[in-house]
Amino acid sequence: MNYSERPQAPLLSNPRSDRVRDVAKLAGRSVRLRQGRFLAEGPQTVREALRLHRDRIAARQPGVVDEVYVTEDCLQRYPELGETALSRLVTPEVLAAMSSTVTPQGAIAVCHFLDVPLDTVLDSSPRLIAVLVEVRDPGNAGTILRAADSAGADAVIFTDASVDVYNPKTVRSTVGSLFHLPVVIGADAGDLLPRLTAGGMAILAADGYGDRSLDELQDSSARRRLAPSSGEALSLTGASPKLEAPTAWLFGNEAQGLPQDALDAAHHRVAVPVYGKAESLNVGTAATVCLYASARAQRG
Amino acid sequence: MNYSERPQAPLLSNPRSDRVRDVAKLAGRSVRLRQGRFLAEGPQTVREALRLHRDRIAARQPGVVDEVYVTEDCLQRYPELGETALSRLVTPEVLAAMSSTVTPQGAIAVCHFLDVPLDTVLDSSPRLIAVLVEVRDPGNAGTILRAADSAGADAVIFTDASVDVYNPKTVRSTVGSLFHLPVVIGADAGDLLPRLTAGGMAILAADGYGDRSLDELQDSSARRRLAPSSGEALSLTGASPKLEAPTAWLFGNEAQGLPQDALDAAHHRVAVPVYGKAESLNVGTAATVCLYASARAQRG
Repeated sequence: MNYSERPQAPLLSNPRSDRVRDVAKLAGRSVRLRQGRFLAEGPQTVREALRLHRDRIAARQPGVVDEVYVTEDCLQRYPELGETALSRLVTPEVLAAMSSTVTPQGAIAVCHFLDVPLDTVLDSSPRLIAVLVEVRDPGNAGTILRAADSAGADAVIFTDASVDVYNPKTVRSTVGSLFHLPVVIGADAGDLLPRLTAGGMAILAADGYGDRSLDELQDSSARRRLAPSSGEALSLTGASPKLEAPTAWLFGNEAQGLPQDALDAAHHRVAVPVYGKAESLNVGTAATVCLYASARAQRG
Repeated sequence: MNYSERPQAPLLSNPRSDRVRDVAKLAGRSVRLRQGRFLAEGPQTVREALRLHRDRIAARQPGVVDEVYVTEDCLQRYPELGETALSRLVTPEVLAAMSSTVTPQGAIAVCHFLDVPLDTVLDSSPRLIAVLVEVRDPGNAGTILRAADSAGADAVIFTDASVDVYNPKTVRSTVGSLFHLPVVIGADAGDLLPRLTAGGMAILAADGYGDRSLDELQDSSARRRLAPSSGEALSLTGASPKLEAPTAWLFGNEAQGLPQDALDAAHHRVAVPVYGKAESLNVGTAATVCLYASARAQRG
């Protein structure tokens, strides 16, 4: 590595400095809310934060990253983390003192909140949205956000009873996807679903007890796409949901599933089939299957 | 709760007893291998272990559970954990001392290894198998095992370079699915793939750089199922993989993907499409999409 590629400022080596303490405090929700900033940890996550930051600066928009702290070891493996004036080299002790995790991965970025208003999403003519209704586990929220990113969803919406998207565990588990697509937080479920409907979206509740099977929806969609003349009309009696229509999927709580008011507000309740002995699907697994089914149908 | 439903033996309250120490030692791989036993932690996982145990006893086969330790709190929420002579009430301190995790969930079972020989799986005319090739993260392994269970797979095979399925973290992350379907461990990839092929299985490598798209395979399969006369023959030139055929999916390492020899031994390399900005799919997400695609095609 060439020294000109390295952060120029001196190595931060005092784990008890005010700066280190200020960064560590962002593990707390109240501090995050007061400052409008959060921690992005891990080299891949920091890299994706920096990528979004550069894109925004290039587009003359406000950036998202305030500071990047990286260890020498991590910088050797991810040199792109040092290619910015925002980066500072730190000792492993400093990084550990800043980090919210017992196994820090060598890089931390302090980022500005990047959630957007619901109107911004609705104005963008979205075709696929994932809505987290009372999803409480940071790892599950991260898995859903990551699956939404992979499936090319246009936005992810967290209702106010869901886990904090800026919780360091949630951020880590998105492995950078948080910086890839618009996120809405604090949505009120009672207000949200009518607005999504008014925006022309079909609302499908992912529900193990749903009366529609995702298989059936996928078959209908495939039939329309692959064999439009093969008697499809027969299976379309009534208001059958079409996966290729603009869709908002609702995913519920790990233990309780979706609350009754969300089930009532949904246009259809759709079950992902369980073929084996598993009693129910992990919400992250169910979300992956649902979002990919929609992506496939919409992009056919 | 009625006292007759409670474990009869006295409450275990000494976290420094030999018994507690013996249980805790099973967090170590060498002790597990020596004893052929492992820890199943968490009420759902213990419940599924007990369910399999009862089924086996009823079928005059050897059981899988040796001992169950459960706290009063956990027993109140999961009374079924106390309905066996194997169960002992323990204090939260005892459970914490036995547990491998910093947040024990109130129940631990000591279980016998339950992996089966590869021949047992091959003799069962399997239609869908998940093979973990150098998957190292216990959480990912658990997600794949759980997805395989949900998708109704006939077995899960761990190659010798994969994470230990009896690692307490792996067991916990399967949330009981480990007790639902046959698991083969320590398979040698060089030996395994020819035997799967000889057993009549198509070997599909889940590979981000694969030349086949899962979308294309799903469409071909849907066309055969839904519109057999719609010119399907056109898309079947060459040896196109058919999702409805008996299939072993190979899933690789989180960072490196599948090793070259596994890619070479596979009949086809299949990419799960990434529609958004995510660089690659989490291996658990990819496995979920692939296994569900096969399940759908095979059960059409």
